[in-house]
Amino acid sequence: MPRFTEFETYDVRFPTSRDLDGSDAMNADPDYSAAYLIVRTDAGDGLEGHGFAFTIGRGNDVQTAAIEALRDHLVGLDLDATLNDLGGFWKSLVHDSQLRWLGPEKGVMHMAIGAVVNAVWDLAAKRAGVPLWKLLADLTPEQIVDLVDFRYLTDALTRDEALEILRKAEPGRAEREQQLRERGYPAYTTTPGWLGYDDDKLVRLCREAVADGFTQIKLKVGADLDDDIRRMRLAREAVGPDVRIAIDANQRWDVAEAIAWVRALAPYDVWWVEEPTSPDDILGHAAIARGIAPIRVATGEHVQNRVVFKQLLQAGSLEFVQIDSARVAGVNENIAILLLAAKFGVPVCPHAGGVGLCELVQHLSMFDLVAVSGSTDQRVIEYVDHLHEHFLDPVVIEAGHYVAPTRPGYSAEMGAGTLRDFRFPAGKVWTESKEQSK
Amino acid sequence: MPRFTEFETYDVRFPTSRDLDGSDAMNADPDYSAAYLIVRTDAGDGLEGHGFAFTIGRGNDVQTAAIEALRDHLVGLDLDATLNDLGGFWKSLVHDSQLRWLGPEKGVMHMAIGAVVNAVWDLAAKRAGVPLWKLLADLTPEQIVDLVDFRYLTDALTRDEALEILRKAEPGRAEREQQLRERGYPAYTTTPGWLGYDDDKLVRLCREAVADGFTQIKLKVGADLDDDIRRMRLAREAVGPDVRIAIDANQRWDVAEAIAWVRALAPYDVWWVEEPTSPDDILGHAAIARGIAPIRVATGEHVQNRVVFKQLLQAGSLEFVQIDSARVAGVNENIAILLLAAKFGVPVCPHAGGVGLCELVQHLSMFDLVAVSGSTDQRVIEYVDHLHEHFLDPVVIEAGHYVAPTRPGYSAEMGAGTLRDFRFPAGKVWTESKEQSK
Repeated sequence: MPRFTEFETYDVRFPTSRDLDGSDAMNADPDYSAAYLIVRTDAGDGLEGHGFAFTIGRGNDVQTAAIEALRDHLVGLDLDATLNDLGGFWKSLVHDSQLRWLGPEKGVMHMAIGAVVNAVWDLAAKRAGVPLWKLLADLTPEQIVDLVDFRYLTDALTRDEALEILRKAEPGRAEREQQLRERGYPAYTTTPGWLGYDDDKLVRLCREAVADGFTQIKLKVGADLDDDIRRMRLAREAVGPDVRIAIDANQRWDVAEAIAWVRALAPYDVWWVEEPTSPDDILGHAAIARGIAPIRVATGEHVQNRVVFKQLLQAGSLEFVQIDSARVAGVNENIAILLLAAKFGVPVCPHAGGVGLCELVQHLSMFDLVAVSGSTDQRVIEYVDHLHEHFLDPVVIEAGHYVAPTRPGYSAEMGAGTLRDFRFPAGKVWTESKEQSK
Repeated sequence: MPRFTEFETYDVRFPTSRDLDGSDAMNADPDYSAAYLIVRTDAGDGLEGHGFAFTIGRGNDVQTAAIEALRDHLVGLDLDATLNDLGGFWKSLVHDSQLRWLGPEKGVMHMAIGAVVNAVWDLAAKRAGVPLWKLLADLTPEQIVDLVDFRYLTDALTRDEALEILRKAEPGRAEREQQLRERGYPAYTTTPGWLGYDDDKLVRLCREAVADGFTQIKLKVGADLDDDIRRMRLAREAVGPDVRIAIDANQRWDVAEAIAWVRALAPYDVWWVEEPTSPDDILGHAAIARGIAPIRVATGEHVQNRVVFKQLLQAGSLEFVQIDSARVAGVNENIAILLLAAKFGVPVCPHAGGVGLCELVQHLSMFDLVAVSGSTDQRVIEYVDHLHEHFLDPVVIEAGHYVAPTRPGYSAEMGAGTLRDFRFPAGKVWTESKEQSK
């Protein structure tokens, strides 16, 4: 019986702060990073599972140590038994009676579980010879709900209700899969709108986005209101009246300030406001949503787990659910969140600004289209054109759409050269920059 | 100018799982642990600051690594400038533009900040030559609010409102300090009620608690309803009708189950139910509170930060705020939570089941009595009689009350022998047990 045998972690960091890519009102100088994991087995097929947690620099060592702490939860396990019960595997990690104290179900330890769970899913899809979205989309409704932990969800979503949602979506699966393979999945771009860019670059990138076929862009806001009004006006002029402009405050405001700021930008037609305040503030988001209607609230990239998403939906705090592939505890928990969103009829528009987040999260939206919500209405996946060259199966964007991946796995695998050169602090990208700065 | 010069971390673990001390419905086998920190300066006074995060075993290495990641945030700082602006110091840790991605403000990284902040407060009180509660209680209202970060709180509590609360409590400070020094601060005991204890031990410990002068005890519940009904009946018979019995489910239930279970125990007179469901479930707690009234809800030991406490108060989710000295980001954030509780008129009854949590949190309740809420009405500090012998300034309980500490500092300091012998995995307590189990 083949078993999991190897568990190899890497602290990988990209010096993105040098160009202010990724700069916003709260994250001034991110170095996009991955606490990266490779798992191997003795199955003899040569297949590996790759997964990672995303961070923005300092602390990536802590995140890597947290993944390392899960080694004994995987190494030695029977391969087939594990892959045949990934719902049970998820619970064995999340409900570890001692590790749960470090969360529970939040922060560094929860993201570490996400990296391990995702690496195992990557391997599962490779062994099945299909991309992850297709592996998930071919599961029966019963198999899908078996992946989900309904603990703490049953006041909003029971197992039976989830089954009903999935069964209702079964008849159209083949047709939607066909549609997905032909047309891809709608994307929007954040590339024009980073706070660190000057006005000329903003306008130029806005025009390019429209020329590239995007129908939605996003601007970072929240540092200075006068600047935001000017940038919003420039962006609106550049893209014209028909392209959606979302804004993203990255948690910058308190409740009253959020309402006032968004109202000041309303004349330029705001599609959504993202992360107006603390990601923990369910009631604050609800108050903001009431205060800025009909402009809508989006959030989720920092929402720690399914329990908080449940409440954001219950309280009417948001109208777009922004799942993140590397914040919660991996594929299983994101399936729970997709089901919650479907229950409440709220569209899912994933967060993907980071390294590798586009590669991963596209699979979840494509699964959602085929087997859960059955729709792309008002749904778009974020696209940011950073760092894709480091992946073996990078995302492909055509005419403002993600092209459905065909390669087996979860598209999570970085090249060996990247793992070597960007490893922190010993990789040459870091040792050479240290030399330069001396 | 003296500076912070040394930053020494220890992974310290106590093998408490061997006796099932600390066992409850979710934490079956805790090894009480501390990710421990000593900070030193070149001031030449020989004083050190001690602080720690509390965990229950596995993962204490990750927690220690997270504290270690904050070394450069302290070492090198000017000592006096730091101690004179501990509000600013707090923000420099919590709002680090890269580290915040690991939370923000939750889980491993946030607890690490708490350990560092608390170590610096321990040093501050030692340098002032007073116990921490006294140091805080002698600050002016303006100095106290300068310690607090009101970001994300202003929809419930502004700086001006906090000042008003503190100014209102100023006149009676001296009198309440006198009362505190004479009578101490009321305690309750969790010692009888761990789930791993058999009925005879439960009854014996209940009787001892009453004989020792406690007017409130607590029982762990949530594993089996029939067992809980029997244990609750035995406890009620043992303590009589006048001693309060609180119950603690340690996050075991979903909403509907919590309501049904608590109602089944209601005939035995339940003072509060603690952690009925996920600590993240603000709306769930509110639904439970409505469903079990007049029995009241207590929670907080796993509440990640002031933003969640704010909402628990706004939503009517609890009627007892259980602060924890080592869960949130240290003294400063707990002051914010004390102020929130005072604003909403909800009593604070700290959590202290763990190692060193009694030692620390007593200072916060005593400060609250003298300078914030000005009351002990319905307020009790948890007491658990574990592991106090490892501390240089252990808590003293007399007639069911905490005696106010008089020794300078935050009572956080473990003995050198403990740090040596219980260090994991190299300390002799762990190497010898490994030998035995071979």
